[in-house]
Amino acid sequence: MIGGGQLARMMIPPAVELGIDLRVFAENEGESAALAVTTVGDYRNVADVLRFGNGVDVVTFDHEHVPQKVLRALVAAGVRVRPAPDALLFAQDKLAMRERLAALGLPMPQWARVESAADLDVFLADNGGRAVVKTATGGYDGKGVRVVSSRAEVADWLEEGSPLLAEELVEFRRELAQLVARRDSGEVAAWPVVESVQREGVCAEVIAPAPGSAGRAAELAAGIARTVAESLGVTGVLAVELFETTDGRLLINELALRPHNTGHWTIDGSVTSQFEQHLRAVLDLPLGDTGSRTPWSVMVNILGGPANGTLDDRYASTLADQPAVKVHNYGKSPRPGRKVGHVTAGGTDLDDVVARARAAAAHFGDGALG
Amino acid sequence: MIGGGQLARMMIPPAVELGIDLRVFAENEGESAALAVTTVGDYRNVADVLRFGNGVDVVTFDHEHVPQKVLRALVAAGVRVRPAPDALLFAQDKLAMRERLAALGLPMPQWARVESAADLDVFLADNGGRAVVKTATGGYDGKGVRVVSSRAEVADWLEEGSPLLAEELVEFRRELAQLVARRDSGEVAAWPVVESVQREGVCAEVIAPAPGSAGRAAELAAGIARTVAESLGVTGVLAVELFETTDGRLLINELALRPHNTGHWTIDGSVTSQFEQHLRAVLDLPLGDTGSRTPWSVMVNILGGPANGTLDDRYASTLADQPAVKVHNYGKSPRPGRKVGHVTAGGTDLDDVVARARAAAAHFGDGALG
Repeated sequence: MIGGGQLARMMIPPAVELGIDLRVFAENEGESAALAVTTVGDYRNVADVLRFGNGVDVVTFDHEHVPQKVLRALVAAGVRVRPAPDALLFAQDKLAMRERLAALGLPMPQWARVESAADLDVFLADNGGRAVVKTATGGYDGKGVRVVSSRAEVADWLEEGSPLLAEELVEFRRELAQLVARRDSGEVAAWPVVESVQREGVCAEVIAPAPGSAGRAAELAAGIARTVAESLGVTGVLAVELFETTDGRLLINELALRPHNTGHWTIDGSVTSQFEQHLRAVLDLPLGDTGSRTPWSVMVNILGGPANGTLDDRYASTLADQPAVKVHNYGKSPRPGRKVGHVTAGGTDLDDVVARARAAAAHFGDGALG
Repeated sequence: MIGGGQLARMMIPPAVELGIDLRVFAENEGESAALAVTTVGDYRNVADVLRFGNGVDVVTFDHEHVPQKVLRALVAAGVRVRPAPDALLFAQDKLAMRERLAALGLPMPQWARVESAADLDVFLADNGGRAVVKTATGGYDGKGVRVVSSRAEVADWLEEGSPLLAEELVEFRRELAQLVARRDSGEVAAWPVVESVQREGVCAEVIAPAPGSAGRAAELAAGIARTVAESLGVTGVLAVELFETTDGRLLINELALRPHNTGHWTIDGSVTSQFEQHLRAVLDLPLGDTGSRTPWSVMVNILGGPANGTLDDRYASTLADQPAVKVHNYGKSPRPGRKVGHVTAGGTDLDDVVARARAAAAHFGDGALG
């Protein structure tokens, strides 16, 4: 796995369980997945990545930032790369993603390719004077995204010269996420669609399944994700972030071709977690059961963590207060807004599950940092 | 953790999840817990073990073979050892265990200390002419245990001069195991009592909870284990192996002061696994909820594995056949009778759960090796 962050870290438990030898290519020593780090290097450096790739059965990713030229060099050297570069492109380049999904006729917000201030003016005029503008590449967790009502607000981006993506500011009732996994053989498995609560552009809380989604919304979401996975040739976990509009439509917001924050609840809440499933999928092993262990699961991110000390210092009070909540600590030093861990609660009464998950997460924060 | 076997390996996932820095002292490179091995050495060597112990917050164990003199050297050097040497003694020395449990008035088979052939003759005469004879120390998984009807059958052991333990050959209906965890603060948590099916002295299958145990048997078993944990000052997981007699009594067979094969089902079947609980307990953190995720869980050991190839070769067929069964591969090379992995199934119908677990395990064996 290229990337040594928390996604690589959370891949360690299922790798240990299934007896898979997980090797991690990280940028630095001491990253979140340190235990499995075998190579330290620069993922933009072809030679570094090739050296790592030549020693493994399959290369997969903790993030989507590995440049296409590096990916293609791996493939040219005979290394199995999953998801394949052609598929990963759609998680790297939002314009390529919109163009491809449009060709497939999938439901999306209004959007346009913006190469000039004039392009943006046209889009704003057509969309009530406001738009979400995104850099086509390089954005994540709210970075590279601005809600604007004039060209002046993205003057810096326009000056850089790279094409931008303008999107309709969707009036949504809530945000959903549909995760599926696909393996090369074509097998696809879907988890239930979940509700994702965002704060300041970052996922704060996930409710699985999305309340009231049984039936039409669940089928619609799973169908969209399956179509995307199959049409784009995805191998591994695919996360489709969706807007549920006030009139009940589902519109595709973003794609991620890897385990995703909205799937962390599956570690404790599903028979097969997204991390185990990703390993199975990229190794072309049969996929696991995606049934839920409890009627409801709620995941709350730990953002920032305590202002003084570490998550460890907060354990005793958390565990004593919430003995049935599962705590996940990414081993990262707290910093305002940084994802340093998460908690998951499960049960049969949604209000109770939400309350327990939030109570557990609250032990780790100091308000100001949250 | 001293010892690099599968118990240390299975400690890695909860350590990663809770953000605990697990270090393993193993006898050799490449053992089951290789990923977390930081020290290779001889656990009977005081200097080796002291060097390891000086770098950690607490020392705990994957097996009970670390000599008391090594344990006491650690304590003398100010290292926190859990379970403490005084408690661990009762898992190391079966005579000491019987003597202590007898003093506590706990239910046990008839037993006697045997220092001579004459002692054994007396015990045989008092117990219908048959007895189970055990070496006081060093036995495990059926080794160091013989069912005998004459002094000649243990002549070699008698010659060695170490005292032996003679026990009544109990007419039991089945074998049970009760696991609890205790932390220094005194908090104790119990999992449901389970049925353990042994073949040739080795645990083959575990059913959780033990069928028909709800009520009296469950309370009795939990009470016995709690008394043992508290009276012996156990820190960490305690496994009490029990005989359920044909007339409904529970008699203590063996003790283990560590995670135990009869608790492997808790990884997938409990809110808190025995491995997570052991970590919490030895670090004196509040214990987790021991509720079950499904009404029934069945664990089947993979003994021996395929005659040709590895467990990995059998994955595709197993996972395709049993998508909801959890497979655990200890990363050990197959050898007749060797524990190389286990599978766990969960569900609401016991017959179905047993059938699925056995079907999954069967993929890994070749009969002859099983």
